[in-house]
Amino acid sequence: MHAYRTHTCAALSASYVGQEVRLSGWVHRKRDHGGVLFIDLRDHYGLTQIVADSDSPALPVLESVRVESVVTINGVVKARNAATVNANLATGEIEVFAKSVTVLSAAQELPLPVASEADYPEDIRLRYRFLDLRRDTLHANIVKRTKIIADMRARMTEVGFTEYSTPILTASSPEGARDFLVPSRIHQGKFYALPQAPQQYKQLLMVAGFDRYFQIAPCFRDEDPRADRLPGEFYQLDLEMSFVTQEDVWNTMEPVIAGVFEAFAEGKPVTPAGSFPRIPHSEALLKYGSDKPDLRNPIEITDVTDHFVGSGFGIFAGIVEGGGVIRAIPAPGAGAGSRKFFDDMNVWARGEGYSGLGYINIKDGEPGGPIAKNHGPEATAKLIAALGLGPNDGVFFAAGKEAQAAKLAGLARTRTGEQLNLIDKDRFALCWIVDFPFYEYDEEEKKVDFAHNPFSMPQGGLEALQMQDPLSLKAYQYDMVCNGYEIASGSIRNESPETMVKAFELVGLSQADVEERFGGLYRAFQYGAPPHGGMAAGVDRIVMLLCGVHNLREITLFPMNQRAEDLLMGAPSLASMKQLRELGVRVVEQPVAKPVPQVVAPDAG
Amino acid sequence: MHAYRTHTCAALSASYVGQEVRLSGWVHRKRDHGGVLFIDLRDHYGLTQIVADSDSPALPVLESVRVESVVTINGVVKARNAATVNANLATGEIEVFAKSVTVLSAAQELPLPVASEADYPEDIRLRYRFLDLRRDTLHANIVKRTKIIADMRARMTEVGFTEYSTPILTASSPEGARDFLVPSRIHQGKFYALPQAPQQYKQLLMVAGFDRYFQIAPCFRDEDPRADRLPGEFYQLDLEMSFVTQEDVWNTMEPVIAGVFEAFAEGKPVTPAGSFPRIPHSEALLKYGSDKPDLRNPIEITDVTDHFVGSGFGIFAGIVEGGGVIRAIPAPGAGAGSRKFFDDMNVWARGEGYSGLGYINIKDGEPGGPIAKNHGPEATAKLIAALGLGPNDGVFFAAGKEAQAAKLAGLARTRTGEQLNLIDKDRFALCWIVDFPFYEYDEEEKKVDFAHNPFSMPQGGLEALQMQDPLSLKAYQYDMVCNGYEIASGSIRNESPETMVKAFELVGLSQADVEERFGGLYRAFQYGAPPHGGMAAGVDRIVMLLCGVHNLREITLFPMNQRAEDLLMGAPSLASMKQLRELGVRVVEQPVAKPVPQVVAPDAG
Repeated sequence: MHAYRTHTCAALSASYVGQEVRLSGWVHRKRDHGGVLFIDLRDHYGLTQIVADSDSPALPVLESVRVESVVTINGVVKARNAATVNANLATGEIEVFAKSVTVLSAAQELPLPVASEADYPEDIRLRYRFLDLRRDTLHANIVKRTKIIADMRARMTEVGFTEYSTPILTASSPEGARDFLVPSRIHQGKFYALPQAPQQYKQLLMVAGFDRYFQIAPCFRDEDPRADRLPGEFYQLDLEMSFVTQEDVWNTMEPVIAGVFEAFAEGKPVTPAGSFPRIPHSEALLKYGSDKPDLRNPIEITDVTDHFVGSGFGIFAGIVEGGGVIRAIPAPGAGAGSRKFFDDMNVWARGEGYSGLGYINIKDGEPGGPIAKNHGPEATAKLIAALGLGPNDGVFFAAGKEAQAAKLAGLARTRTGEQLNLIDKDRFALCWIVDFPFYEYDEEEKKVDFAHNPFSMPQGGLEALQMQDPLSLKAYQYDMVCNGYEIASGSIRNESPETMVKAFELVGLSQADVEERFGGLYRAFQYGAPPHGGMAAGVDRIVMLLCGVHNLREITLFPMNQRAEDLLMGAPSLASMKQLRELGVRVVEQPVAKPVPQVVAPDAG
Repeated sequence: MHAYRTHTCAALSASYVGQEVRLSGWVHRKRDHGGVLFIDLRDHYGLTQIVADSDSPALPVLESVRVESVVTINGVVKARNAATVNANLATGEIEVFAKSVTVLSAAQELPLPVASEADYPEDIRLRYRFLDLRRDTLHANIVKRTKIIADMRARMTEVGFTEYSTPILTASSPEGARDFLVPSRIHQGKFYALPQAPQQYKQLLMVAGFDRYFQIAPCFRDEDPRADRLPGEFYQLDLEMSFVTQEDVWNTMEPVIAGVFEAFAEGKPVTPAGSFPRIPHSEALLKYGSDKPDLRNPIEITDVTDHFVGSGFGIFAGIVEGGGVIRAIPAPGAGAGSRKFFDDMNVWARGEGYSGLGYINIKDGEPGGPIAKNHGPEATAKLIAALGLGPNDGVFFAAGKEAQAAKLAGLARTRTGEQLNLIDKDRFALCWIVDFPFYEYDEEEKKVDFAHNPFSMPQGGLEALQMQDPLSLKAYQYDMVCNGYEIASGSIRNESPETMVKAFELVGLSQADVEERFGGLYRAFQYGAPPHGGMAAGVDRIVMLLCGVHNLREITLFPMNQRAEDLLMGAPSLASMKQLRELGVRVVEQPVAKPVPQVVAPDAG
């Protein structure tokens, strides 16, 4: 018989009744029914009920052992009587009568309970992550995460991609965020950088004649903590293809991403591959007030600026005259309800820092509110007809400079959808946002800068860069969006050295700058570069959506806290003098640990 | 028609004759046959022959375009005549007559040729890695590498393992090598470390109740360059299992590793799973003079110390009297040849720093050489009989202190096998080396230290630590060896907090030290830890063996050079003052780059 187990804790069923078995696992729960002790024995695979009574020599040990201790049970499989069969448990037809027990590892009193989903302070959860991870939901989320990633790999392989690993100790990448630096010992005073993304390497792979690259790529950005981003590292499904147009990337990736969602959506509908809406960036800003629209929300925004030219509603007329816009956000059926809903929305908008959110509430065909009144009955009727509003609908208006009005309209659309319960939570609505602008005007730096990826190909190529207003240029740049979250971003790359130089020239970088900063890629483009493009999908974000959680810590094995500390391992920690000396760096006015006999850095946590 | 290609360069065959096609790729080779131009067009998938003559408007462009330029060809598929069919090429039955051509990307003159396997200086190969990677052999090696890794993943999944990613920004691990450090911006003066291996995390995963973890794990060691190790990062097939004995690990992993070898050995025999020899460490040192024996070499070493007690061959008798040992290394059939072979071996041994390598050469049953002569005919006959030597064999003797003699014997065994062509190069001989010593005596530090992994379980557990001579203790620690290379290493772990404290106490570390340095793991062991064990296999080493190459650069996409520099991307490079200020570190007496307008670190390469 095996030293620890003949079966896992999920393996036994009625067909094993009468067999002598050995099980090992954690004491999950104990229930004492007056001389009869029941124990749920747990391992990675499941639970098995162990029973002991006064006939069993195992009883005293089992009575005294703490929950979460690890034990080995020798026993015999017995059928449960009909009344105690648990249909929800794989092993629910049987129990194991314990004949003997060995305590492999006794547990101390627990700092947080395992057989409970009760909320616990984050610091305790992270410090005792090995206990936290034993809890049902987190354990299941982590297993689901690994399955999602394995499924991504399988689907990518199926459509002809090959997984390549790119270096982690590398040079700065121009993703725009802050790099983590790694001091070089051999080249004192110089630093490696951890990759913010394998952008340049994947492009170099295409220039090197490979095709259909992918990688579940660790990426590193030293950014300030944010609610929706863990400090430090995150994972991308990173991919690149040669000899493709953007349509090829979309057509290739829709089945992969839709397939992954379908596989883990537990029956919730997913936008089918081949039918992802492809929404131009400018249209998204207009219709949804966002380049990350939640398409589960049926509300669409309309520009109604023209309706308010010279309107009796002087505020809007003035805004229009000053070059502003008016956007209408329908609130279907809201007119039938209380006017408080409309007023609350207005208060909310002010709370968000906007001057307010005008509205018309239609009750039994009668438009109400100050805008309707001042705009006049005829113009209002025309406006309502144009918007196709029904006799008990409402409509909000976001007014102001275009970017501001669009943003407010987007927020109001989301809030209205939520308040009116219009959003079908139980589906995954996927789409592409395409034709992103190539440049944007940086108000702080007072100059033109790249709107997104500087390595993207501007639509129209070199000629467009030379002839058109930079701020009017679009890029072959696209995002994939699901339920209001950007889950992927990509582009067709600019593989022409001349176009690359021109594109950087327009943001104020010379050819020498390009050669200095992106020398590898620039050099590569001189020796036969194929047209290529790809994208990167946020693995963590996709897993979060599929697990239905809102915190990355619920889908991450060993996350850092929001202060970028690993409380379990005690990182970051002080370095020894010896280590710093070897690296040729000095810490500025900070204590340094005393030297230690081994090479191991002391845990300062 | 697609903008770039209707088919890849490996797709067309005789069944396509007459079709209009579009192909894109690199101009691999050009051959001008007097007015008829042949071009091998290459992409990731293969080659297609393009032909143009004076009837083709594409001729002038194709004539002028440089090799390695990227072009799109519009043409028609034609059958080759029987004489020019190339059976070695997937597309060898056809050629494409070019009707028009577009140059997508013109190549400059090449710094190293692509359509050639000629050796080139490493610096040029690494600086122009995107060209180097286009070359046949390297391209094929990289593709093979990706396939081997995918195959490992598939086999691990098949036997019930799940892939989990563990953190890359973490704390120091006690693998004994030097850590790469990453300065923390938020906690100035403190540092993260890149993992030397996910050792502690995988153990924590087991304590967290997961089972059968694996990972193709990036590992980082800041070691001085060595011929067989790339600076910086390398990959391990890392795995861990709960509720296992070491036999379970061996029985689980033999089919995986043997399976991977069989899948990529191209018909070469591989030791079948289930029949890997399991050789105790002490036996390996005796029989093979190494803990990494090449079992393709049929020679086995024998201890013949007893034969030389009081021998007439005074040197050996003296060594034996002084506590030394004599090891015999047979040289089958060597006696039939020239005596020069024996003398050359002796010279070689002296060149290696040993005092020499004695021998007996037997010719037609007659033992020759000074040892035979002085040892005496009767004793020599007894020795030869004991060693089972034939009438034309030879035998070498390595004499001295045990460790020294064993090492020389091992080297002589290898050299003899090579010189006599006894090693079957065309197979993969796999075995386990087991029962490694737990401690060793550190001659430099004059103290007992861990021989291998400090987290391994000593055989006999706590009691053995308390009762036995530490240097006599064995560990549940094992290596997997292939053809003389260590390709994996593992152990059953010590999951008992008491045993852990005792084990560290014997190398001079207190319980407080253990808690300070390995706090996460030590804490975890207090709350129910399962018995667990695993191993880590060197991915790069396995790929090298299967690709039949001897340099890691031949199987690595973007390696650093031996000075730990990435010549392609220009890493490491200087950091800006702003970056260093943010991190709170200062470079010791080194120049620092001027501040740059963007966050991108300048390329100082």
